[in-house]
Amino acid sequence: MRISVVLSVFATFLLILSFFMILPVVVALLYGEGEMISPFLIPIGINVGIFIIIKLLTVNRANRALSVKGGFLFVTLTWFGAAATGALPFFLSRVIPGYTDAYFETISGFTTTGASILSEIQSLPRSILFWRSLTHWLGGMGIVVLTVAIFPLIGTGGFQLVKAEAPGPTVDKVAPRITETAKILWFIYLGMTGVQTVLLMFGGMDLFDAVTHTFGTLATGGFSPKNASVGYYQSSYIHIVITVFMILAGVNFILYHKLLMGNLRTIRRNSELKAYLGIFIAAMVIIGINLYRSGVYGSFGTSLRYAGFQAASILTTTGYATTDFDAWPEVSKIVLFLLMFIGGSSGSTGGGIKVMRIVTLFKLGVNELKYLIHPRGVFNIRMNGVSVKKDILYVISGFFFLYLLMLLLTTFVVATAGNDIVTSFSTALVTLGNIGPGFGRIGPTLNYGYMPDYVKWFLSFIMALGRLELYTILVLFTRRFWKR
Amino acid sequence: MRISVVLSVFATFLLILSFFMILPVVVALLYGEGEMISPFLIPIGINVGIFIIIKLLTVNRANRALSVKGGFLFVTLTWFGAAATGALPFFLSRVIPGYTDAYFETISGFTTTGASILSEIQSLPRSILFWRSLTHWLGGMGIVVLTVAIFPLIGTGGFQLVKAEAPGPTVDKVAPRITETAKILWFIYLGMTGVQTVLLMFGGMDLFDAVTHTFGTLATGGFSPKNASVGYYQSSYIHIVITVFMILAGVNFILYHKLLMGNLRTIRRNSELKAYLGIFIAAMVIIGINLYRSGVYGSFGTSLRYAGFQAASILTTTGYATTDFDAWPEVSKIVLFLLMFIGGSSGSTGGGIKVMRIVTLFKLGVNELKYLIHPRGVFNIRMNGVSVKKDILYVISGFFFLYLLMLLLTTFVVATAGNDIVTSFSTALVTLGNIGPGFGRIGPTLNYGYMPDYVKWFLSFIMALGRLELYTILVLFTRRFWKR
Repeated sequence: MRISVVLSVFATFLLILSFFMILPVVVALLYGEGEMISPFLIPIGINVGIFIIIKLLTVNRANRALSVKGGFLFVTLTWFGAAATGALPFFLSRVIPGYTDAYFETISGFTTTGASILSEIQSLPRSILFWRSLTHWLGGMGIVVLTVAIFPLIGTGGFQLVKAEAPGPTVDKVAPRITETAKILWFIYLGMTGVQTVLLMFGGMDLFDAVTHTFGTLATGGFSPKNASVGYYQSSYIHIVITVFMILAGVNFILYHKLLMGNLRTIRRNSELKAYLGIFIAAMVIIGINLYRSGVYGSFGTSLRYAGFQAASILTTTGYATTDFDAWPEVSKIVLFLLMFIGGSSGSTGGGIKVMRIVTLFKLGVNELKYLIHPRGVFNIRMNGVSVKKDILYVISGFFFLYLLMLLLTTFVVATAGNDIVTSFSTALVTLGNIGPGFGRIGPTLNYGYMPDYVKWFLSFIMALGRLELYTILVLFTRRFWKR
Repeated sequence: MRISVVLSVFATFLLILSFFMILPVVVALLYGEGEMISPFLIPIGINVGIFIIIKLLTVNRANRALSVKGGFLFVTLTWFGAAATGALPFFLSRVIPGYTDAYFETISGFTTTGASILSEIQSLPRSILFWRSLTHWLGGMGIVVLTVAIFPLIGTGGFQLVKAEAPGPTVDKVAPRITETAKILWFIYLGMTGVQTVLLMFGGMDLFDAVTHTFGTLATGGFSPKNASVGYYQSSYIHIVITVFMILAGVNFILYHKLLMGNLRTIRRNSELKAYLGIFIAAMVIIGINLYRSGVYGSFGTSLRYAGFQAASILTTTGYATTDFDAWPEVSKIVLFLLMFIGGSSGSTGGGIKVMRIVTLFKLGVNELKYLIHPRGVFNIRMNGVSVKKDILYVISGFFFLYLLMLLLTTFVVATAGNDIVTSFSTALVTLGNIGPGFGRIGPTLNYGYMPDYVKWFLSFIMALGRLELYTILVLFTRRFWKR
């Protein structure tokens, strides 16, 4: 692994990030927030400076493609680096006075977690709120994917990089070259962003609110510029539009490409999609009935609307709320709790364990029952109409176990700060799963501000670990990685 | 599968069970509990009657060995049947007026869970308390193993049966014939029962209390004839003896046979034993320090004693308590909560997921990290010095997933009765893991009496499912099982 190659690509990434940091400057100018310009220009300047220094230092030494190891290091650097530099506007503007808090808020944004340390949001400058939501949007489809889409010069390591960053156990190439795939994915994402923004404006939102809520929806992020999250709006139209788009964001984006290509057969035989929609509908109906029977909302229709919104929000790992679901009856809360173990589809912007892994492991478990009856039989596990390779089963099993291990480790660390079981365990679930709000002291009406600094740093790490699906970061902790 | 063969073996089992039901009759006679004789004699009579009827009906038709399928059905029948008939003394004596409650208490006994619906225990007849603890002892080493040990006539299906019942992913044969293995295991168990009883009597317990507490310890059961569980005794000697024997009961019993044979090498290279002891010591030290620093107990020694007792009790899935651990500081509670995910060693009387599975899955997860760096490498997973076969990895992965699925399903069912998340989730953990007391409304000072009947029946099923390690019972729910 050549560090110079890694640094050189990282420098390119910093430049791209700086470009996106110009957008909130434009917002600041539009809304007359003159004092907000330098908090953005300073990090832009720092990034450009680092870019120039690295490129000068690595000139003639960085012409090789990234190695596999270099890819892992680059992707990890990218995410922690994006948060480090992206936190500066919050910190420099003194909107968030402590750097720990600013870092937490920013990595929560990029990882599309949506866990916030802020209690008062509405009164913040527009440029800061825009940047806060933009981190979601950039992190949702993946900042590395974006880098690959824009700079094909990264070369042959591109596919490896996208695999290291993109959610889901497998990345299908939709185009022969990964650059093409990355571009197609980003164009679809961009298109959906446009459609949702327009639909929200039809519902009475102004452009700013529509764009920021769309960023939070399509990235399955969950940051809202309103204190009461989507609950700020009483319009059932807005609730339904956001519900639908959250569900759409939790679908494998490759399927949208297939749809555009008219390849309906692939979509129809997609096991993950069926399971994902089935889980959503089941959760919505159970919560809806429970809410209605408990008399929380007057009509069954309203109950179902609140149920659908929250089920979609938690399943897709968005984290928006239209109400304080922590005050719901126990059955509804438990269903949401169960959804926290699942997550979105592979290849979607959603986090968590992912429906594909859950379905595959379920089939593996059922398969073992068959072997008990016919020990000499041969039973394949089929997903999307093709049988799953044995290697993939190991990868998924190993991932699942490590995920639960990290979940329990996080629970322990959060508990050392004196948090109760519900708070500690749900904090672990919603940070590793990139969901955001949970139960107890981190419920939807509360925030992470009260946690001590060491917990905030640990959770910042856990959010990145969850977003990059463990392996990319964990591999850096092995001795083998640093050998030779 | 011939039902007549299954029924014939089941009849034999009922006869053996009836034999053991004579023991509490003896206790009743010794303590002058004349009114307690018929509640035991009636089920004995019923069992003998069923035995005679089945044997008459299946004469000449049940000479064949049990098939694989027949084995699963037989083992399942055995456990639910043992609880059905074993509940009668509680019910007929009106010690537990409802049959649902009696069934729950009995299957909790046989599965060595130790979850109780009783709030007042000390004042109950001695014969009933003896029977309650005896169900632990019989279920601990396994009632099917016992049947196999006593009746070699079950024939070639014996090994299959023991595999279906005995805890742990693998059963090593210590003797060429399974009957011999079953006998050796039961003799070791019997010997340890004798030693612990004597040691407890040295500490001031009378014979009755010593025997019943020994039953609860070695079976990792947790029923105590005292309202305050082991906390009734203030003697640190008694606490330490029980701690040591709980830990011993959580070790693979095959290792004791190796020890007796002088085969120390096998013991020294046993990965599971090392991990098991390591987890116990780590948990004890963390809880000990946390209790001491929180000032719950005066000295560090006392803190460590309480910590060691409770860590051993939860890790081995016993469920005894020397204090109300639900009132401990959060860090200690979380460590106990984490231990609930682990369980004893394979081949021990402990329940839960089992240390061996946890260690194997951990190694599988770490292995995948190696493949990331060297995709073409070959990395084996070694346990106890030998590499684990791929098939075993699938079995363990499938088991682990189904276990968590059943855990979440149980959480949901318990929540439908209006229980909060902590109560529902810990109920699931402690019934499926055969632990007993948990957190919230089923804490160590409380009991399951308040749960509605449908939850009690469901949990009765879940306790058996956990004790038989899912597959044996779940396989009966597949269509394939009942084909042809």
